Amino acid sequence: MKLYTSQRAPNPRRVRWVLAEKGVTDVEIVEIDIMAGEHRAPAYRDKVGVPHVPALELDDGTCVTESIAICRYLEALYPEPNLFGHDAREQAVVEMWTRRCEFYLANPMMLTVRHSHPALAALEATQTTQIADYNKVTAERFMRMLDRHLAGRDFIVLDRFTMADIVACVGLDFARLIKYRPPEELANLARWYEACRARPAAQAGA
Amino acid sequence: MKLYTSQRAPNPRRVRWVLAEKGVTDVEIVEIDIMAGEHRAPAYRDKVGVPHVPALELDDGTCVTESIAICRYLEALYPEPNLFGHDAREQAVVEMWTRRCEFYLANPMMLTVRHSHPALAALEATQTTQIADYNKVTAERFMRMLDRHLAGRDFIVLDRFTMADIVACVGLDFARLIKYRPPEELANLARWYEACRARPAAQAGA
Repeated sequence: MKLYTSQRAPNPRRVRWVLAEKGVTDVEIVEIDIMAGEHRAPAYRDKVGVPHVPALELDDGTCVTESIAICRYLEALYPEPNLFGHDAREQAVVEMWTRRCEFYLANPMMLTVRHSHPALAALEATQTTQIADYNKVTAERFMRMLDRHLAGRDFIVLDRFTMADIVACVGLDFARLIKYRPPEELANLARWYEACRARPAAQAGA
Repeated sequence: MKLYTSQRAPNPRRVRWVLAEKGVTDVEIVEIDIMAGEHRAPAYRDKVGVPHVPALELDDGTCVTESIAICRYLEALYPEPNLFGHDAREQAVVEMWTRRCEFYLANPMMLTVRHSHPALAALEATQTTQIADYNKVTAERFMRMLDRHLAGRDFIVLDRFTMADIVACVGLDFARLIKYRPPEELANLARWYEACRARPAAQAGA
């Protein structure tokens, strides 16, 4: 298998973090330079089908995109430590929280960064301050909900580290590019965030 | 189990369609009137945790939100007909296409409708023509890609009907509220779309 990844982009980092948590070292890593447009080059698009990174090329040539689909596939190949839930009920609540962290935190933070950072202007048709501001408000609304939820909890769901923690932590980390930090009064969020960042796999995946 | 649903909203319809495909009739259906704000009422929020519909209340009181998480849980309880893939490879490509259909078709179409239809102005802080137009362009770009992909295929992925078809078809159907139809020249898309709409479960789920 080959993983097409890009060093500073957030969605590929989710996959590298999963590989690091599971101690997987036999996947070939191929770096794609998004800022140089390598994901739009014919060689990549013809192989993968879409100009998206990350992509996982299976041994039969199938290319899987969408970081969460890739991570779930890796979980099937390398089941432990479990990150998506053991049974149907666990899988349902992990997917619920993973999606909440994607749609209300990671995606809005990504849009905030892409519409703020001078070096990322090349990725947008028009960088728009209003889009950055609107998405920051959306993300901070979710952070306040998550802060209340994390009172008395070490992890977002299931009392153990899961995919939901990876998605949320990577989303917040990406915003460090614009020197963003979550509101200081969110003490539960801060405690959880530091614990996630202190995991060995967080560094390996960065 | 109880399913909290709302008649005209697209995400709850995904779940009802899955129940209909699988012939499940023993889930109690509870109608939530979104236009009357019932999803924001304390009774609902206290139970579900968030003002989101659909929600599936399990027999132990756990409430699962996020339509795709609910549908995957239902697949575990009622495995046939299979909608999410049988093995890890099938599950990966079904999730990949389901997510593409969510992010590049269903979500943009939903935003187009919400920022166009007079009756839905109540759901937005500000209805904005530019948001409607931008999202229609995004959705139509994906429709053209999907039209090429569907040449010689009856279904979006796996040569059988899956969750990806449900998400895409529900996304297009929701836009009928504003009398939207996909560009006529997309003949493969039109053929696939009519076949999906002709399934008995499409009507049961509507």
